[in-house]
Amino acid sequence: MKVTVSRKAHFNAAHRLYRKDWSFEKNESVFGKCNNANFHGHNYDLTVSVTGEIDPETGYVIDIKELADLIYQEVEVAFDHKNLNLDVPEFADLNPTAENIAVVIWNKLKPRLKPEFGLEVVLYETPRNFVSYKGN
Amino acid sequence: MKVTVSRKAHFNAAHRLYRKDWSFEKNESVFGKCNNANFHGHNYDLTVSVTGEIDPETGYVIDIKELADLIYQEVEVAFDHKNLNLDVPEFADLNPTAENIAVVIWNKLKPRLKPEFGLEVVLYETPRNFVSYKGN
Amino acid sequence: MKVTVSRKAHFNAAHRLYRKDWSFEKNESVFGKCNNANFHGHNYDLTVSVTGEIDPETGYVIDIKELADLIYQEVEVAFDHKNLNLDVPEFADLNPTAENIAVVIWNKLKPRLKPEFGLEVVLYETPRNFVSYKGN
Amino acid sequence: MKVTVSRKAHFNAAHRLYRKDWSFEKNESVFGKCNNANFHGHNYDLTVSVTGEIDPETGYVIDIKELADLIYQEVEVAFDHKNLNLDVPEFADLNPTAENIAVVIWNKLKPRLKPEFGLEVVLYETPRNFVSYKGN
Amino acid sequence: MKVTVSRKAHFNAAHRLYRKDWSFEKNESVFGKCNNANFHGHNYDLTVSVTGEIDPETGYVIDIKELADLIYQEVEVAFDHKNLNLDVPEFADLNPTAENIAVVIWNKLKPRLKPEFGLEVVLYETPRNFVSYKGN
Amino acid sequence: MKVTVSRKAHFNAAHRLYRKDWSFEKNESVFGKCNNANFHGHNYDLTVSVTGEIDPETGYVIDIKELADLIYQEVEVAFDHKNLNLDVPEFADLNPTAENIAVVIWNKLKPRLKPEFGLEVVLYETPRNFVSYKGN
Repeated sequence: MKVTVSRKAHFNAAHRLYRKDWSFEKNESVFGKCNNANFHGHNYDLTVSVTGEIDPETGYVIDIKELADLIYQEVEVAFDHKNLNLDVPEFADLNPTAENIAVVIWNKLKPRLKPEFGLEVVLYETPRNFVSYKGN
Repeated sequence: MKVTVSRKAHFNAAHRLYRKDWSFEKNESVFGKCNNANFHGHNYDLTVSVTGEIDPETGYVIDIKELADLIYQEVEVAFDHKNLNLDVPEFADLNPTAENIAVVIWNKLKPRLKPEFGLEVVLYETPRNFVSYKGN
Repeated sequence: MKVTVSRKAHFNAAHRLYRKDWSFEKNESVFGKCNNANFHGHNYDLTVSVTGEIDPETGYVIDIKELADLIYQEVEVAFDHKNLNLDVPEFADLNPTAENIAVVIWNKLKPRLKPEFGLEVVLYETPRNFVSYKGN
Repeated sequence: MKVTVSRKAHFNAAHRLYRKDWSFEKNESVFGKCNNANFHGHNYDLTVSVTGEIDPETGYVIDIKELADLIYQEVEVAFDHKNLNLDVPEFADLNPTAENIAVVIWNKLKPRLKPEFGLEVVLYETPRNFVSYKGN
Repeated sequence: MKVTVSRKAHFNAAHRLYRKDWSFEKNESVFGKCNNANFHGHNYDLTVSVTGEIDPETGYVIDIKELADLIYQEVEVAFDHKNLNLDVPEFADLNPTAENIAVVIWNKLKPRLKPEFGLEVVLYETPRNFVSYKGN
Repeated sequence: MKVTVSRKAHFNAAHRLYRKDWSFEKNESVFGKCNNANFHGHNYDLTVSVTGEIDPETGYVIDIKELADLIYQEVEVAFDHKNLNLDVPEFADLNPTAENIAVVIWNKLKPRLKPEFGLEVVLYETPRNFVSYKGN
């Protein structure tokens, strides 16, 4: 009897899409206005979903407060009100596209959960653009 | 050619998370403020999703009005403006966590649908906390 | 140059609409299923709006963090995961309709703000039902 | 490392649910008020989701601007501010139920994407009624 | 102590923006794709707000169930799943722009309410376009 | 018969809250994490509302397409995917708080509208924090 428990969270950050090893022109042609050298930013909306058996003792798959705290520690403290390119080590050499941010978040959260739990991360970069990653 | 048809519904209810066989202190340490002996409450948002083949006659998988009526009869009449712990028999001895409510709703709806239909229930307890159950 | 600054907040609570000095039948006829003696509940969404001049030093009318803290102290601590009828003194003899809750919140917040600030409280009892109060 | 990239779009259209080969009475009994001979209409909200590997060069599965343009060309130009029954060839002999519209959209988009990409279409006919189709 | 009580409602309808006394070309130049002779349609979201004193007996300005019923009778029955131009008498000679629909709704509701109540109608034609009317 | 017509728009931008003439410590104590020297960012949601008489010829107060184009030219082109502090001249010496951004937008739009029109700007910096300005 597997149930999925989901928690929404939120962080604001600046970023720039580009590769250091490409010319400005190549970055411009691939990433367009997302390549602004002065950065732009987003309100990222995040949904983290954990799938597992209901614990018959408590009726919980996972205490949602525990899940919220984990997201706070691993994601909000690290990313909120930050410049992803300059302030977050994972993106020192990784382009902070929504796809890559979702994978980074998944990789940070997975080892902090029971190994038998399934994990999915959904990341809204804007209200109309979002990505999801399940780890495979 | 399987399509999923989803209908959103809504009910308001009071509940308390606790186990009768635990001390108040143990309930407090596990369920925190959700253990308020005077109850608290939620606007539950429910999405019910039915998956099946499109009927080539009508172009419907299921008449959404029929699905809405079924949710009304099985869920809204039973749960809306109720105290889940005191007024709903299914929770007489089952802790009304979001996980357990989703499973109870799934179990009420499944036998009322064609056996070949897939069924998923998504239940929002708050705008930021939700669970889903597909029956396995 | 008056600007309005608004902050959204959220609390979950149980309540019952009734008057102690009326018979159950009269309460039933006026308040219908909201008169459930075992209570029901809601996720209340609250928007608090403060209107005043922009401080030319900071560019703020009010520091939104300060406003969020004030709402937390005066409203969330007092109402969240509570039974409004039984746990909140203001409703000991006041029917906790959305209208009355909004007025109580306004009365709690107003003296904590600069006297020259305008204040409006919008309270969603459900996603489709809401009230607002500006203090006159 | 498969990631799903989703883009929301929107179109407004009129439609009528009925079969030309059925009597008005039979259509009325099956489709109810959706059979209004003068048509009714909707704001359709569409989410298109593409699943594939992240390109390590760009950090994109698919450039979301490219996906948005594809939806614009194939869906918005064809359906927006149109009468689905009268103006859109695909529905000349196909009842424009939400289910059938989703399948038509999927069939229009699939050949325009890399064959290895997975594709899901979610179509909201109203804020409470929606369907999804993944191509099998 | 005036409080505003608001109720959201919803209707789906087809319409066409044009004037019978103008040429097709003039209508096309003014109303663009909204002039499609085969109609297009919308999910209209409606918020009706009533402002008045709280009744100290009940704690209500107006029973929201009564307000919901009034909107149902006057607006939903008349407009839902209709073609505004062809099925709704008020628009026989009045262009069904969002502005005019809002005024028509206000004029239908105002005489059904206590004369001392203030009334505002907000009408969403799409999620990004809406109008409001307060009667003056 | 005055009606208000509203249009929603959207832009993404980076910003930093600080005063050049204050020490880093003073900026930190007033603006907290919003003072990150590397910037952070937001998805700004904007609602622009124009109030005026309905033109009896067209049934419009203002053609919403015209209003959308004006917002695009004056706000989206100028602010979207920009660093407000570095790329937007209005904020060269003005702290880009939500309050100040709303006033700047109002001042850009007002002269482009008929002088008899009322104008209100609502700016969401995050889904829970927003400001509004009506020009006085």
